[in-house]
Amino acid sequence: MYESVVINLGARCNATCEHCCFSCSPSKKTSMEKSEIIELVKSFSNNLKIKVISFTGGEIFLNYSFLKELLEIVHSCGKKSTLISNGFWGANVEKVKIYFKDMKELGVTNLSISHDDFHAKFVKTDCIKNILEESRKYPSIRVVVNIAVSKSNMGNKVIEELDEAALGIPLTKYPLIAVGEAENMADSEFQKIYSIDNLEQLECPGYEPVYHFDGNVYPCCSPAVFDTALILNDRACQSFDKTIEKMNANLLLYIMRKEGFRWFIEIVMSNQEFSHIQIEEHFSSICTICRQLFKSEENIKLFTPYMREYYEQML
Amino acid sequence: MYESVVINLGARCNATCEHCCFSCSPSKKTSMEKSEIIELVKSFSNNLKIKVISFTGGEIFLNYSFLKELLEIVHSCGKKSTLISNGFWGANVEKVKIYFKDMKELGVTNLSISHDDFHAKFVKTDCIKNILEESRKYPSIRVVVNIAVSKSNMGNKVIEELDEAALGIPLTKYPLIAVGEAENMADSEFQKIYSIDNLEQLECPGYEPVYHFDGNVYPCCSPAVFDTALILNDRACQSFDKTIEKMNANLLLYIMRKEGFRWFIEIVMSNQEFSHIQIEEHFSSICTICRQLFKSEENIKLFTPYMREYYEQML
Repeated sequence: MYESVVINLGARCNATCEHCCFSCSPSKKTSMEKSEIIELVKSFSNNLKIKVISFTGGEIFLNYSFLKELLEIVHSCGKKSTLISNGFWGANVEKVKIYFKDMKELGVTNLSISHDDFHAKFVKTDCIKNILEESRKYPSIRVVVNIAVSKSNMGNKVIEELDEAALGIPLTKYPLIAVGEAENMADSEFQKIYSIDNLEQLECPGYEPVYHFDGNVYPCCSPAVFDTALILNDRACQSFDKTIEKMNANLLLYIMRKEGFRWFIEIVMSNQEFSHIQIEEHFSSICTICRQLFKSEENIKLFTPYMREYYEQML
Repeated sequence: MYESVVINLGARCNATCEHCCFSCSPSKKTSMEKSEIIELVKSFSNNLKIKVISFTGGEIFLNYSFLKELLEIVHSCGKKSTLISNGFWGANVEKVKIYFKDMKELGVTNLSISHDDFHAKFVKTDCIKNILEESRKYPSIRVVVNIAVSKSNMGNKVIEELDEAALGIPLTKYPLIAVGEAENMADSEFQKIYSIDNLEQLECPGYEPVYHFDGNVYPCCSPAVFDTALILNDRACQSFDKTIEKMNANLLLYIMRKEGFRWFIEIVMSNQEFSHIQIEEHFSSICTICRQLFKSEENIKLFTPYMREYYEQML
């Protein structure tokens, strides 16, 4: 069931975007130890269950020689890699050529570029154009552009500027989630396109183990999850098998999968002890509901008796 | 290897787009017999190799009761369906709700909406917004928008008008290919983003058996293939197994896969008998190269001695 794993290498980035979910910046040092990262990547690469290892940061191309070292480990074990980057390296056309050649040789199957009105203050759209144009020569590497948007930054100018470089490239606008730096934005900026009225359709969009640079392991890669107590490890560098064991044995995740968020929301709404949780009527992502519900260990503890009851009825 | 099959049901469409690769229109009657389609869908649904059956037209939602009948056959055998539509049915919000409910129940995993400056003359962008907004309640149905573009129709106004309805939806601009109605367009409209200079990177982007409404079976779903002699059947309603057998035994497809288009282009460029094939230096899609090379049975015959030689050397 779980064939992929994500590693967030570190918080260092060339940009300081006002919407960044991890509040990354050039001065941010938070990172796993290099030796730890190498050990993790080696163990993932040697794990028969894993087919794909995804790398993101911060900005992972800032230390390209280290990234390449990791890709080589993954490739030498016959696994595939996927990458997320802001594309700053597109400024240098020679680098773009070399990086694509490397990525092809080292089995990178997906490159997601984050570019939008926020990133464009730090990375020129022309850099992204250079990357997209080179990518056409590499059909084995699927390139997409993810565009963070808000009420007053809809990304249309960026799309227009990408012009013919974007031909054949999926462009997806994502509404901001109020986490990290974005939490400081005016509430009116968030595009609340989901409604609590569709309670039965509030399903978690996906599960995938993520090894975060803060040392924790999370059950998904949504920016919102890193601001929850949904932590799957009790020590650093937990093995993938242990993480999967914990994901499968986790009653909360089981109920979330089986019953959707509805089960939790209904408990919150009809029980006094949850009065501190104000479920919003409208919200920009299903993940913000998850974050509200499981923001603290205390919240999770409050659900425990209800989950136990669920478990007993299930038996 | 081949887990999916495409059926192009018929050429009838509510629109008459000036770029349509099949020259579809309200008056076009070309179609497989309904009984033939049902038999095909039944046999595909009962084939253990097939996991996904894709339906496109023309416009397949024009006869929704028939489409639903087909989806029911597929679903009853535990297979998945994917659909392509211009989204005209988005004009009726009640229909949108019913169709999504049906699609979820009947195992539709993907819905690709074709919308752009050309389609917008026949289907209002508001119809598409209704569809995209409803789709948020159905995370199990992946919805994308494919935007056909040309030099003077870059689709940016459509993207702007989709506004918040497009949040979370991949939007992909595709350059026009000069087939079907688009063949009548001025040459300056085509965005020739690929170059013959990158000969070694000219690989076929994909193989997937397609049962076309003209009765032929083709090895891929590119609009360009239907204007080639790359036909895999010698009689109507050929079984999927027979099609796969033919795809696997086809020496031309084998060489295309193994050597890329380079092998064929080099033969064309260095042998007199191919002087009628003028390979363009710049072109809007790799598929246009394929179309130029294999446009007629005569062309394919001219390659035969070279392919035979290749085969003999291989042995």
